[in-house]
Order: sequence, then C-alpha cells, then structure tokens
Amino acid sequence: MKGMLARWERLCASSRILRFVDVNLRGVGQVMFQDNPLSGLLFLVAIGWGSYASGMPQVGWGGLVGVLAATLMAQWLRVDTAALNAGLHGFNGYLVGLALPTFVAVSPALWVYVVLGAAVSVVVMLGLTNVLKTWGVPALTAPFVLVSWLLLLATNAFSGLEGGALPPAGEIVPIDPSATDPLRFGDFVGGVLTSITQVFLKGHGPAAVLLLAGLAVSSTAAAVFAVVGAVVAVIAAHLLGAESQLVTAGLLGFNPVLTAIALGAVFYRPSARVAAYALLATVLSVIAQGAMIAAMTPFGIPTLTAAFVLVTWLFLMPGQKFE
Amino acid sequence: MKGMLARWERLCASSRILRFVDVNLRGVGQVMFQDNPLSGLLFLVAIGWGSYASGMPQVGWGGLVGVLAATLMAQWLRVDTAALNAGLHGFNGYLVGLALPTFVAVSPALWVYVVLGAAVSVVVMLGLTNVLKTWGVPALTAPFVLVSWLLLLATNAFSGLEGGALPPAGEIVPIDPSATDPLRFGDFVGGVLTSITQVFLKGHGPAAVLLLAGLAVSSTAAAVFAVVGAVVAVIAAHLLGAESQLVTAGLLGFNPVLTAIALGAVFYRPSARVAAYALLATVLSVIAQGAMIAAMTPFGIPTLTAAFVLVTWLFLMPGQKFE
Amino acid sequence: MKGMLARWERLCASSRILRFVDVNLRGVGQVMFQDNPLSGLLFLVAIGWGSYASGMPQVGWGGLVGVLAATLMAQWLRVDTAALNAGLHGFNGYLVGLALPTFVAVSPALWVYVVLGAAVSVVVMLGLTNVLKTWGVPALTAPFVLVSWLLLLATNAFSGLEGGALPPAGEIVPIDPSATDPLRFGDFVGGVLTSITQVFLKGHGPAAVLLLAGLAVSSTAAAVFAVVGAVVAVIAAHLLGAESQLVTAGLLGFNPVLTAIALGAVFYRPSARVAAYALLATVLSVIAQGAMIAAMTPFGIPTLTAAFVLVTWLFLMPGQKFE
Repeated sequence: MKGMLARWERLCASSRILRFVDVNLRGVGQVMFQDNPLSGLLFLVAIGWGSYASGMPQVGWGGLVGVLAATLMAQWLRVDTAALNAGLHGFNGYLVGLALPTFVAVSPALWVYVVLGAAVSVVVMLGLTNVLKTWGVPALTAPFVLVSWLLLLATNAFSGLEGGALPPAGEIVPIDPSATDPLRFGDFVGGVLTSITQVFLKGHGPAAVLLLAGLAVSSTAAAVFAVVGAVVAVIAAHLLGAESQLVTAGLLGFNPVLTAIALGAVFYRPSARVAAYALLATVLSVIAQGAMIAAMTPFGIPTLTAAFVLVTWLFLMPGQKFE
Repeated sequence: MKGMLARWERLCASSRILRFVDVNLRGVGQVMFQDNPLSGLLFLVAIGWGSYASGMPQVGWGGLVGVLAATLMAQWLRVDTAALNAGLHGFNGYLVGLALPTFVAVSPALWVYVVLGAAVSVVVMLGLTNVLKTWGVPALTAPFVLVSWLLLLATNAFSGLEGGALPPAGEIVPIDPSATDPLRFGDFVGGVLTSITQVFLKGHGPAAVLLLAGLAVSSTAAAVFAVVGAVVAVIAAHLLGAESQLVTAGLLGFNPVLTAIALGAVFYRPSARVAAYALLATVLSVIAQGAMIAAMTPFGIPTLTAAFVLVTWLFLMPGQKFE
Repeated sequence: MKGMLARWERLCASSRILRFVDVNLRGVGQVMFQDNPLSGLLFLVAIGWGSYASGMPQVGWGGLVGVLAATLMAQWLRVDTAALNAGLHGFNGYLVGLALPTFVAVSPALWVYVVLGAAVSVVVMLGLTNVLKTWGVPALTAPFVLVSWLLLLATNAFSGLEGGALPPAGEIVPIDPSATDPLRFGDFVGGVLTSITQVFLKGHGPAAVLLLAGLAVSSTAAAVFAVVGAVVAVIAAHLLGAESQLVTAGLLGFNPVLTAIALGAVFYRPSARVAAYALLATVLSVIAQGAMIAAMTPFGIPTLTAAFVLVTWLFLMPGQKFE
C-alpha cells in the first residue's frame, strides 16, 4: 500500500492535473480526517453508490461539484500549499455539496448554491482556522455546518430554492415513549452501519463497508474507533430511551463516530486514559445530538455535524495532555 | 473640501464644545465607516428628514440621544482618545437610538432604554474590540445588534415597554412563490435607494441621495461600493426569487450594502481581486439576510445588521492578503 | 474566624480525606465566588434545607453528587492544583447537580445524567478558562449553563429522562399588563430574599439568611453587593413593569445578584466608579434576564445564569481599569 501511494505521489509531483485530482481525493478523505487519496477514492465511491441506491444521484454529484469548487476557490485565494495539498480545504465543500441536494430540490439555483456554498466554506475554513489556532484547536466541520445552515435557512426566503425535504419547523415535541422498541440484533447492526454512513448524510448501510475500508487503508486506529464509536452510540442511545427509528437510521450515531475518531485516533495518541476521555466525549455526543435535534426544531434545519464539532471543541479546548 | 475640514479641525482643537460636536458627528459618520464630521452631518440630516417624512420623528431624536449618550459614556470610561475622536464609540449608540423607537412605542421607559442601551453599546464595543483585535478584526456594528436584540427581546417581559411594532414571533413560514413579481424599473431603483437608507433603518428612498453625498464627500470608493452593493443585492435577491415587497423596501439589501463598502473600500485597498472577493461576500450577505429573517422568526425580533456583521467577520477572519 | 480557618487548613494539609472535603466545600462556596470552606458549608446547609422545605430533597442530594463527581473528575484529569484547591472545578458541577433534578424526574438515568454532566462541566471549565484567559476573563458559570442546557434539551429525545418540570416550549407571548401588581413591602422583602436563593435555583426565602452569612464570613463586600444587587433588581424589574410573580419569586433577581457581587466585590476593588459600573451592569442583568426568558421560550429550557454570564463577560471584556 505504501509503495503504491509513494508511486502515486511521484506522479502527482510531475503533473498538475494529477495533483489536482489528488488534492480533491484527499479533500474527500479528510471528512474522516484521512490525508490519503485512496481513502478519499473509497469514500467517494461509497457515497456515489449510496446516492444512486437511494434514488438521489444529485447528492453524489453535488459532493463532487462541491469538492471541486472548494479546491478551485482555495487555489484562487492562494492558500497555504501544505494545507491545500493535505485536502484541508476540500472536505467542507464536499459536505456542503452533499447536504444541499439532500434537502433542497434540484433546480438551477441549487447548483449555484452548491458552488457558492463550497467556495464560501473555504473562506470560513481559513477564518476559523486562523481564530482557533490561538488555542491549538482545529476548525473541524464547523465551516460546513455554518455555511449549510445559512444556505438552508435562506431557502425560506427564496422561491428559487425549494426546501421541501428539510425537517419541518415548529414546536419541540418530547419523545413519545411508545416509539422505543427493544433493540434487536438486526437493528443493532443496521444502526452501527448507518451511524458510519450518516457521517456523509447517507442512510445506506452497506456503503459503511467501503467507508471502513477507506479508513483502514490509512489508519487502523481510525477504523477501530469508528466502529467503537458507532457501537457505543447505538447502545447509549438505546439505554437512554431514544426513538428506535432514529437509532436504526444512524441519526444519533454519526456525530459520536466522528468524535470517537477525532479524540481517540487523530488528535491524541491512543492510550487507556485517552480512550476513557474519548468514550466520555462519545457518549456526550449522543446526548448533544439529541439536544441539537430539539434546538434546531424551531428553525426547521438539520443538525448536521454540529454536535460533533461542539463536543470535540469542548474536549480539545482544555489543551489536555495525556502523556 | 479639505481646506474646510482642516479649518473645522483647528476650531475643534481649541474648543471642547466643538470637539464634542465633532466627535458626535463622526460617530454618526462611522455607521458607514466615515471618520468625517461632514459625512455625519449629512447622514444625520438624511435620517432626521426620513424620520419626519415617515411620521416617526422619535426615531431621529432617538438617534441623536443615542449618539450623545454613547459619547458621554465613552468619556466617563476614559476610553482611548484616538478611537473616541474618530467617532468609533458613537455609531453603535446612534443605531441603538434609531432602532429602539422604531420598534417600541414612545413611553418614559423607552427613553431610559435608549440612554441605557447606548451607554452599554460603548462597553460592548470596548469588549468586542479588545477580543477581536487578537485577529485584527473590527467589532463593526455587533454591539448595536447585540444590545438591541437584548433590549427588544426583553420588551416581552416588561409592560412598561410596548413592542407592538416588532415582527410577530412564531413559526417560520417558507415564502409563497406568488409573492415574487417581475422586477420593474421603478421597483429596481426604489429597491436600490432603500437598500441604502435601511442601513439606518429607514425606508425613505429620497434620503439615499443625501447618504450617498455624505459618503462621496469622504470617500468616492465608499459611495461607489454602496451603490454597487445595492444593485447587486437587488438583482441577486430577485434572481433567487425573493419576495418583491422585501426587495423593494430595501430589507434584503442594507446588509449587502454595508458588506460591499466594508470589504470593497474600507478594510482592503480596491483592486480586481478585492472586488471579486467583496462581490462574493455581497451575494452571500443577501442569502445570510434571508437566513437571519428565518432564524429570528421564533424570537420575534428584527435582524438588524447581523448578516453584515457575520459575513464581514467571516471574510476578514482569514486575514487574507490581496497585494 | 481567621484562626479557625488557619487551623482547618493545617488539618487539611495533613489529611487527604480532609483536603478532599475542603476542596468540595470550597467548590460550593465558589458558586458565589468564595474560596472559603465555611462559606461552602453554610451554602450547602442552606440549599439542603431549602430542598427539603420545598419537598424536593433530590435537588440537595443532586448538588452533593455533582460537586463530588466534579472534584473526582478534576483529580482524574490532573488539573492545576491551585485551581482545584480553590474550588474552581467544583461549583459548576454543584450547580449541574442542583439543576438536573430540579427539572427532570427522578430515575436511574437522572443520576447517570448528574454524574456525567458534573464530570463534563470540568472539561468545559478547563476549556473555557483556557480560551478566555487570552483576555483575562473568567469562565464564570458558563460551563454549568452550557452543559445543563445540552442535557435538558436532550431530554426531549430520550424517554428515560422525563423533563416534565421544564418550562413548556412554545411561542413567545408578551407580558399581560394586568400581571403587574403594586409592590407591597412583603413582596419586596420576599423578592429580595428569593433573588439570593435563586442563585442556587431555590425559591425558599429564609435560606437567604444562611447564604448571606456564608458570604459575610468570607467577604463583607460580597454580602453587601448581594443585597444591593437584589434590591436594585427587584426595584428595576418592578419599575419596568415586570410580572409581579416573577419578581417575588426571585426569578428576575438572581442574575443581577451574581453580577453585582462579581463586578462590585470580586473582579474590581470597590470604589464609587466601580459601584456605578456594577450598578449599570446589574440593571442590564435584569433586562438580559427578561430577554433570556423570551429567547429560551422556543426551546423550553430555563435561562439558568446565562444573563449573569453574558453581562459580566461583556463588562469584563473591555479590561477596564478603574484605578
């Protein structure tokens, strides 16, 4: 694997086109923190497959347009080359490109929205990175969340953008206890898989295998923490009495998956104390996602990865040392 | 013009009363970033005229009380003299003084509110300036927005303050497509003019001429970017399918106007690349204003210049260099 | 008094168990900024008494569990010993432990919630302290507010946590003017006392005497500013036309009490100018609490001490010098 990547890197060094391809693939890989073009390729294929399987090909294409627009914008802004080449300016644009066609009907204005949103995500990434480096904290997917929220909220004001697939705005209604079913094995496995695919806003369980493969080719620890995060999330959500359909659809698990990878395998070196710290944050991410679903109800917008960003920021801001 | 201002400056240097007048006029001028007493005077006259023309003289007087209270508070707090003399502690108080009587019925408590809000706007200005200088970002009109939101929200709790002119709190309702009419030339011109006057919360189109004159005496670039911002905003809003009445009333354009001036002519030296950057931010300000209108609906408060502050912060935080 | 505390300090220095008790008592004392175990003991007794008197013993026990969990978490995280020993990692956990059983029905999941929330409050305290020290501003009770809001909002998603005692989520309804009665002397005294006890989320007036004693043994100025803050708050709220029941129950006064102590007696040395500055902030805290009540209505969660945190941050961020 390493030899193959080294050969690819040499090819990219000699071709601006291949380098451009490489940067965009790494951009996709960075959705789960992997600075690795093969991870990105596997993620891209998994999400394209999931998009077609769920009858929404525009989501896969939206992601592709988003990551391309973001990379071009980053080049126009002459950003730091190291960050650009590591894909750090692509993942938010990719996610914006997945999110907008997920919630907004296809129209010419939607594609303007995707390009504009992806371009702006680079500006927000640069700004948040600049602010947060004061404390050594990364921007994570906050640019994606912020830009998507703005663009989705604004669909209420513009008839060219039809946000009929958005969650309905209204009053918060506490859970009906009868919506909590026993957790059967099939539901458990399904919930674990979709908790991983929902990181990319897809509920297509089988694609999780490709996503995990994409993680494993780059970092075994990341793949392990992704699975552990999903398992912990499904169990914790069920024990707290969450709505079974939400658990099974992965909608309470994708934030904990990202938190578990980030704290367990990316920003700290894995150890027993780190694992305990990451575990606490993972469980808190389940609760934070429950809170975000309620908090977003009056606004009629999806929570996206806000719970992951919030909890991971909170757990990185102390600058805690574990060694 | 320069000779006249130099003579005025000499007079102010020798008279505490004239200096106080000067500081307050510059405070009004800083609403559109002009450290120029003549700009301030023209703005003040324009808004006074607009207030009387719309049958709400209390708005013009409120602004005057607000800027005076803010300047006195700044003097009591012994703020940095250079910032004080540039009017940087007056513009938020002036805007608070315009906003409160626009949305709250006249009563003794209203005037207490104006004085208290203007005074607090100075504290918030000092605090935000202190925090944001870490990254070289200005506070803009954030103190005005924050203080006014607090004071307007609180009218729900106090029977001495009757907020009947506030937007009604309730559920977000997506736009009815039938509210989008073709953009006729008269509406276009009207929308451009009110996009400029709504910077000061007034919908009186003719006053825009005085406001533009106030900009032009101090900075031609600022006047140009104000008009371009308004034109871009009206066209973009119309193309996205915004409600025609909102466009014509300038309610989707005043934030983009401020963004265009700030990024195009104040915080960067004008150039082709800067203009492109400012254009992107200007269009985003239209969308952000659409988003803010929705986001504020559950709270029943106006968006004020929050969209401008948000977008301009996002576009300044990267510390992007264009030279 | 000083001799007794010195003797106690010597005992703690020689016993890990007594030191642990001391740290927890100081943690309770820090709810009102007192690094003093006797203050903490008096506060603990006052709130225990108030909990039993109002038929909600779980609140008193929740606080105890919360402060213990927070201190243990701080020890596990190996936080700075000076901060730990001053009780700075206990007060947020204590407040989380009071708040959760106040609004959520007793169940096994509630006690998991208390322990988890208190533990997380330490992480948030470390993070916010790290971020805010950039400008010399303390975290105050922001960790308590943030963690409690997340956990309370999330009760909507989990059937294991029954948040029936939460304020109902819904539309903001402006005050009915007929809810404003004349302020009789008994109501005035009652409002002053409960404004002090509501700092700990209790509406049991008599306990205020113990709380004031706890302040007085540590800082006369703190006790004076607590009373003055409560008096100012009750009068200001009444003059603005607040709902009499809210005033009498102390629900518009506890934030101003904290603001008055913080700005008048803790973070500045008392003087006439400081008192004027603190007075402005105290009145603003009444208004901010009115605003927060409205702002939280769509979310159906209590305001907690958010108004105090917001206003005190705003008034500390300028780094204003008064000497």
